[in-house]
Amino acid sequence: MDLIMNIVAIVGAGPGDPELLTVKASRFIKEADVILHDNLVSDAILAINTTGEKIYVGRKFGDTTDQIERQQKINELLCAHYQKGKKVVRLKSGDPYVYGRAAEEARYLTEKNIPFEVIPGISAALAAANIFNIPITERKKSNAMLICTAHTADYSFEQLTGIAHMLKAGNTISIYMGLKSLHRIIPKLLEVCKDDTIPVNAASNVSRSNQEIITGTLGSIQEQIKNSTLQMPVVLLIGAHPIQ
Amino acid sequence: MDLIMNIVAIVGAGPGDPELLTVKASRFIKEADVILHDNLVSDAILAINTTGEKIYVGRKFGDTTDQIERQQKINELLCAHYQKGKKVVRLKSGDPYVYGRAAEEARYLTEKNIPFEVIPGISAALAAANIFNIPITERKKSNAMLICTAHTADYSFEQLTGIAHMLKAGNTISIYMGLKSLHRIIPKLLEVCKDDTIPVNAASNVSRSNQEIITGTLGSIQEQIKNSTLQMPVVLLIGAHPIQ
Repeated sequence: MDLIMNIVAIVGAGPGDPELLTVKASRFIKEADVILHDNLVSDAILAINTTGEKIYVGRKFGDTTDQIERQQKINELLCAHYQKGKKVVRLKSGDPYVYGRAAEEARYLTEKNIPFEVIPGISAALAAANIFNIPITERKKSNAMLICTAHTADYSFEQLTGIAHMLKAGNTISIYMGLKSLHRIIPKLLEVCKDDTIPVNAASNVSRSNQEIITGTLGSIQEQIKNSTLQMPVVLLIGAHPIQ
Repeated sequence: MDLIMNIVAIVGAGPGDPELLTVKASRFIKEADVILHDNLVSDAILAINTTGEKIYVGRKFGDTTDQIERQQKINELLCAHYQKGKKVVRLKSGDPYVYGRAAEEARYLTEKNIPFEVIPGISAALAAANIFNIPITERKKSNAMLICTAHTADYSFEQLTGIAHMLKAGNTISIYMGLKSLHRIIPKLLEVCKDDTIPVNAASNVSRSNQEIITGTLGSIQEQIKNSTLQMPVVLLIGAHPIQ
C-alpha cells in the first residue's frame, strides 16, 4: 500500500460515448478501485471498469437535497477511500470545470494535502458541434463562443447584456440545462436581438445511442420542441446552422 | 480496397499530450494511411502513427500565404487521398470547430459527397483550466465562460461590449492567440471594466513538457510577461485564480 504514489483523479467523462473519453481518463477509470460518479455518467462508461466499486453520488433534476451537505459527503468519501490506499476516481459528466464543480473538490483536497489531478473531458456543446457539424466558430462569421447555463439569463442584467451583444455580433451561444427554461430564455434573447430568424439547435443525449437534434430558429424552436419527445439532457447551440 | 466503408476523419488533436486525445481520435490516428496535419500538432501525437504518410499543411505565425488558396489545396489533398482508398485523417490542434476551420473542409466534403466524421478534441482553454486548476465556472461566482481570440477585440464594438459585460459580471474569458496582441487587449478590457485587479493567467504550451503559466492581473500581466521567456502558443484565462 504505497500512499505516496497514489492520487485522487477528478475525471471528465465527456458526453457519454466511451470513445469520447480522453485516453488518460479511460486509463484512470479502468484502473480505479473506487469510482464516485454523477447522474449523467453513462452506463457504457461505467462498464469499462469491471472490478472497482461504483458509488453513485449524483443529483437528478428536481432533487432538493442540500447541496452543501451533499458536497461535504462526497469530499469525505474521496478522503476516506484515498486514506485506505485506494485508487479513487471522481467521475463527472462532461468537463470537470464546466459546471462540474471541480473547484469545490479541488479546494478540499488541497486543504487536506491529498494529491490530485483533474483530467479534462469533452463538454456537451463541443461534442454537439463536432457530431452535428455546427460551426460554432467560423472565419468571418463567428470568432467567439459563449458557454452559459439556462440560469445565467436570470442572474444579472450585466450577463444578459453580454450574452445578447455576443449573439448580435454573430457569435455562437451554447446554453446548458436549457430545456425546462426555454420559455424564459427565448423571449429574453428575442427582446435584445430583435431577430426571430437566428438559428437554434437543441441537441439531446449527445454521442449516445438515443442522441437527437432539433434545428429551428428563435421564433420556432419552442413550438418544435413542444411537438417533440426531446429528452434531457439538452444543450442549445444558438447562432449557427448545421452543415448539410 | 473498400471505398464504401471508408471515411475522411477530421480529428481534434487536443493541446499536445497524446493522453489528452480522445480514445476515438487516438484510434483513427493510429490506423491512418495519410495524416494531413497543422503546425501546432505535437510530435508526440504524430509519433503514435508509425506507418502512415504525414503531410504538413500548416501555417506558422506570420505566414502570409493566401488562406483561400491554401485551404483549396488541403481540400484537394483530402479528396485525392480518399479517392485512392486511403484512410485519411485531417489532424487539427485543439478542437476542429474551435478556431480549427473544420467548417470549410466539412462543406467541401459534403459538396463532393465524401463521407466524413469530425472528432472533438480538448481545446486549449479547457486543458489549461483542468491542468492548472483554474475554476472557469464555479457556483455563485462564474456561471458562463467566453472563448474568443485576440482579434475579436478589434472586430466590433458589439463584441467588445459583450466581452466586457461578461467579465464585469464575474465570468471567465479565455483568449486564444493573445500573446502578441496583449498591448491592444488589456487596455480595452481595463477601459470597460475599470478594475486592474481582475486576475489573468497566461498558459503556454499547455500539457506539453515545456508548459508554463504566469498568473497576474489586468494591471500587472503585461510587465510580467515582458520579463519572462513565455513562448507561443499562449491561451489567456481572465477572471479566475488558480486553486492553490
